[in-house]
Amino acid sequence: MAKGNINVSVENIFPLIKKFLYSDHEIFLRELISNGTDATLKLKHLTSIGESKSEYGNPFIEVKIDKEGKKLHIIDQGLGMTAEEVEKYINQVAFSGAEEFLDKYKDSAKDSGIIGHFGLGFYSAFMVAEKVEILTKSHKADEPAAHWVCDGSPEFTLDTCDKQDRGTEIILHIAEDSTEFLEDSRISALLQKYNKFMPIPIKFGTKEETLPLPEDAKEDATPEKITVDNFINNPNPAWTKQPTELEDKDYKSFYRELYPTQFEEPLFHIHLNVDYPFNLTGILYFPKMTQDMAMQKDKIQLYQNQVYVTDNVEGIVPEFLTMLRGVIDSPDIPLNVSRSYLQADGAVKKISSYITRKVADKLKSLFNENREDFESKWNDIKVVIEYGMLSEDKFFEKADAFALYPTVDGNYYTYEELTEKIKENQTDKDGKLILLYASDTDAQHTYIEAAKAKNYEVLLLDSPIVPHLMQKLESTKENITFARVDADSIDKLIKKEDSAISKLSEDETKTLDELLKEVIPSEKFMVQLEALDSDAAPFMITQPEFMRRMKEMQASGGGGMFGMGNMPEMYNLVVNTNSALVGDILATEAKEKKEQLITQSLDLARLSQGLLKGKELSDFIKRSYEMIK
Amino acid sequence: MAKGNINVSVENIFPLIKKFLYSDHEIFLRELISNGTDATLKLKHLTSIGESKSEYGNPFIEVKIDKEGKKLHIIDQGLGMTAEEVEKYINQVAFSGAEEFLDKYKDSAKDSGIIGHFGLGFYSAFMVAEKVEILTKSHKADEPAAHWVCDGSPEFTLDTCDKQDRGTEIILHIAEDSTEFLEDSRISALLQKYNKFMPIPIKFGTKEETLPLPEDAKEDATPEKITVDNFINNPNPAWTKQPTELEDKDYKSFYRELYPTQFEEPLFHIHLNVDYPFNLTGILYFPKMTQDMAMQKDKIQLYQNQVYVTDNVEGIVPEFLTMLRGVIDSPDIPLNVSRSYLQADGAVKKISSYITRKVADKLKSLFNENREDFESKWNDIKVVIEYGMLSEDKFFEKADAFALYPTVDGNYYTYEELTEKIKENQTDKDGKLILLYASDTDAQHTYIEAAKAKNYEVLLLDSPIVPHLMQKLESTKENITFARVDADSIDKLIKKEDSAISKLSEDETKTLDELLKEVIPSEKFMVQLEALDSDAAPFMITQPEFMRRMKEMQASGGGGMFGMGNMPEMYNLVVNTNSALVGDILATEAKEKKEQLITQSLDLARLSQGLLKGKELSDFIKRSYEMIK
Repeated sequence: MAKGNINVSVENIFPLIKKFLYSDHEIFLRELISNGTDATLKLKHLTSIGESKSEYGNPFIEVKIDKEGKKLHIIDQGLGMTAEEVEKYINQVAFSGAEEFLDKYKDSAKDSGIIGHFGLGFYSAFMVAEKVEILTKSHKADEPAAHWVCDGSPEFTLDTCDKQDRGTEIILHIAEDSTEFLEDSRISALLQKYNKFMPIPIKFGTKEETLPLPEDAKEDATPEKITVDNFINNPNPAWTKQPTELEDKDYKSFYRELYPTQFEEPLFHIHLNVDYPFNLTGILYFPKMTQDMAMQKDKIQLYQNQVYVTDNVEGIVPEFLTMLRGVIDSPDIPLNVSRSYLQADGAVKKISSYITRKVADKLKSLFNENREDFESKWNDIKVVIEYGMLSEDKFFEKADAFALYPTVDGNYYTYEELTEKIKENQTDKDGKLILLYASDTDAQHTYIEAAKAKNYEVLLLDSPIVPHLMQKLESTKENITFARVDADSIDKLIKKEDSAISKLSEDETKTLDELLKEVIPSEKFMVQLEALDSDAAPFMITQPEFMRRMKEMQASGGGGMFGMGNMPEMYNLVVNTNSALVGDILATEAKEKKEQLITQSLDLARLSQGLLKGKELSDFIKRSYEMIK
Repeated sequence: MAKGNINVSVENIFPLIKKFLYSDHEIFLRELISNGTDATLKLKHLTSIGESKSEYGNPFIEVKIDKEGKKLHIIDQGLGMTAEEVEKYINQVAFSGAEEFLDKYKDSAKDSGIIGHFGLGFYSAFMVAEKVEILTKSHKADEPAAHWVCDGSPEFTLDTCDKQDRGTEIILHIAEDSTEFLEDSRISALLQKYNKFMPIPIKFGTKEETLPLPEDAKEDATPEKITVDNFINNPNPAWTKQPTELEDKDYKSFYRELYPTQFEEPLFHIHLNVDYPFNLTGILYFPKMTQDMAMQKDKIQLYQNQVYVTDNVEGIVPEFLTMLRGVIDSPDIPLNVSRSYLQADGAVKKISSYITRKVADKLKSLFNENREDFESKWNDIKVVIEYGMLSEDKFFEKADAFALYPTVDGNYYTYEELTEKIKENQTDKDGKLILLYASDTDAQHTYIEAAKAKNYEVLLLDSPIVPHLMQKLESTKENITFARVDADSIDKLIKKEDSAISKLSEDETKTLDELLKEVIPSEKFMVQLEALDSDAAPFMITQPEFMRRMKEMQASGGGGMFGMGNMPEMYNLVVNTNSALVGDILATEAKEKKEQLITQSLDLARLSQGLLKGKELSDFIKRSYEMIK
């Protein structure tokens, strides 16, 4: 039996790393600036614990374009490398100097913010450069500077050079197919995208600044302009600070930093900050929601140690919260080598449920601290909360404390308050509590008025997912049911013991029924004769709750009952036998006139359900112009 | 100066490959079956060119679960490996045997369908297995079978064994955290997802089959059942065949194979087939579109040599075509090592524009070959075509030949036919051609009738993106403008030389104007007195085209004019000075009665624009019930 070691040859793996590991060539800049940042943070740590005699100072990283020479320079003032260190860290692909450093300084350096992980990032340079040079001088005194050159083959040269300043300069000789990376605008956009909040200042070019005029300046004095270094990043973004250090205005101004083109203010923020069992910081914002839910998504940015990774936080943030905005930063989110997608992992689930819990807690405290303010924002946040209640059972439970049920009159109740308020008046004869609601105060105005006339509370539930939520509430809470105000006549929606008395005799009822059946198309309306209040509408069109809700649930995606979406709309025509008009119909002699009365009444009933359209509406209007002439 | 070679040590890179290269652990099965398929295809090629003496036969690949032993077996009957070949192909990570084979047999094997590329797939086994064994016997006579074992450390053992059958068996000792891969249902689902159309038959378990009864069987005879091998794949899916070999029913049955839960038939298909400058085959289907565009997406599946890769074809297929369904298979689409995302690449752009061109050509030929059928499908496909016209200029040009403009009467014109038809009647006095349209035949019924009374053609343009498309057509075509029928009175929408004569004197007009201004709220309606036909509507509400369209464009996302979305709705009230009703109003004595006439007329005009809602509608209905009593 032979024994041996699996072998990886550089000739085989190197082309793969160069060409296929990263999907996006542009990330080379993120990787190289991350390396420069690590080199600086390591030096900071070593000087702080006395292991380096070097003066830390105020180091920064500089990015420089040499368009004529077709070169891009990335220069840091970090700890630099000796020739041996170049051998060790650069020439050995996938040997992570960052991991080694964190291992060595386990306790003291665990919060140092060091980024590197896999030891592959440097080689991303070869995606855009035909030749790469390293000029580096170690922080250790008396070590000569080293000069490393490699043209992308696995062969390199290593020599000394006369670099005087501590730190490392990477020179990329940009390849023919990548000259876009010699454009100021391109590099500037990349720095904005990936490095905007990195912890070491990054200099890119210069800018002009206007000096303030001295106080004794003449009126026509021209302010002096000076050229200063242009630093592109904010090394201390809000999420890296403690909530106690920040005021409301700081959160708002950070929102502006994140979304400079966004005019609306966020409604409120949630500061995330956890050490155990994983490290995560961040700030989430509730924006004002618009109708188009799809457009809201992908606004949360994921960072690792202040390096931008992606705006796709699927899996990390529960789906219902992807409509929020803001930043999450965690070194513990397991990403693949190129950081472009998430590794399936149990830790991720923990992060997701931590975020859910934090959001629920924040909502609860906002509700408790300033209920009026919370109510005023409800319409802008309800979609998220309702969606969360539907999709996450834990959130559903917690939401009982702050989810609001607004009425058409602008009152906002919690579920408990609501049921307490209505249980007396809206419990039907079978002991079931009926929660009346409208989805559109305009379209259902007549029906809402009828319910209000009985002192019933009518909720205004108008989100598209609300039918699903009602279904969930009905199956979770005890002995309740939701009914839209136009699902039946109000007396039938909440059936009480007392049954109404009809003014009509049995014979008259029969005559009326036959007459109606002649005129009303039976394929469109089920006629129901009901003894209602005499001043209730004479004709009224209703649509049974169950069927309508199933159709709505199918339309808003998922749920409902299979095939319901294709069922025809079904309406009932409730005719109030106690109304004066019905008396008139029966009393009218001429058959033609009887029928005309019924047709006109039906049209008016259809009008109030929005069912009179097109030619029929045009005809109705024409007829009415004739009548008023 | 020192020279040297960059070095990759197996200790560093092996953990990365095992843990981080692939985002999804489940793809190990795809990779191992792909290896087995390649081994079989290579043997097929070698026997066909006489380089192997082995009998090819009818080889298949078997997947077997040994639940008790916690093992998963993948067994092929391909060309097998000698001990030296194991050394070469297995022990050298990232050495691709497939690439080597294709290099060696460049000309003869280029269409062999061999899948392998990077030489990394085998190692994905270690994502789910704590130990991996290979038992393999080469097709070469007299070579002893080899047995390779590795526990995931870089160390392996290699020995001989007594395997008798040609081919390779991979045994995965499934790790504790991956026991899901010992479940029948999980493996079955994976095979369905990744291997459903792979070219070598794949056996997984057995199934029962009922034999047909012999013709002379007694009536109460029980049909015999037998147990047969269960093959899970269709090795010759429709897209691998030539269009000439396939009939319409074959395309439909392949659609069923792809989407077994889909009940609707596709409207039509597009067979893609190109060799140069890249290899690509596939079949795209136009499904019936539903309203929810987001739900339609991600239905196109991407394959490489019949191996499923992803259903995210972003970048490969232009965005407007992601609403189609079907399959694209191309070995030339550059994916990263784990095939999980696309490499930014010029070749991809070529593929995308090839697909766009093919789709345009197919639409043109469908239109030419059977216009009636094409027209009948227009409403189901227009969203895609209109979106394509908006987003791809090349497609916009080509679409002139088949894009249809339907009228409210159900006629379908091409742009050229339409302008030819209407240029006589609908060119205004300034020489501009006015294209009238409605967005809703019901809601705009009165206005449509007014236009039709003038023999104008009214288009029915109801897609949400149509305002954008009109904008594009107006800026591309010469001297045309779109106007919705309710944007003004019809005489003003298409202004002709002759100006109408008002029945009213100057004094009467002034009196009317003052009267109207007293009653009509000026913040809601701009009153316009116009001398229209005496039988045109007395009062009519219009909404200027420009403002309305800008608002619509903003609402449907992008375009329009900044800030327009928040402008209040603006309506004009056109009062027909030649109508009998206006005469009545002037002739009425009592001021109260005058005002009542105006209010009622205004309500009727609002009704026909859908503007009478809520309390105002309820009041109108109540009033009308009173009037008919």
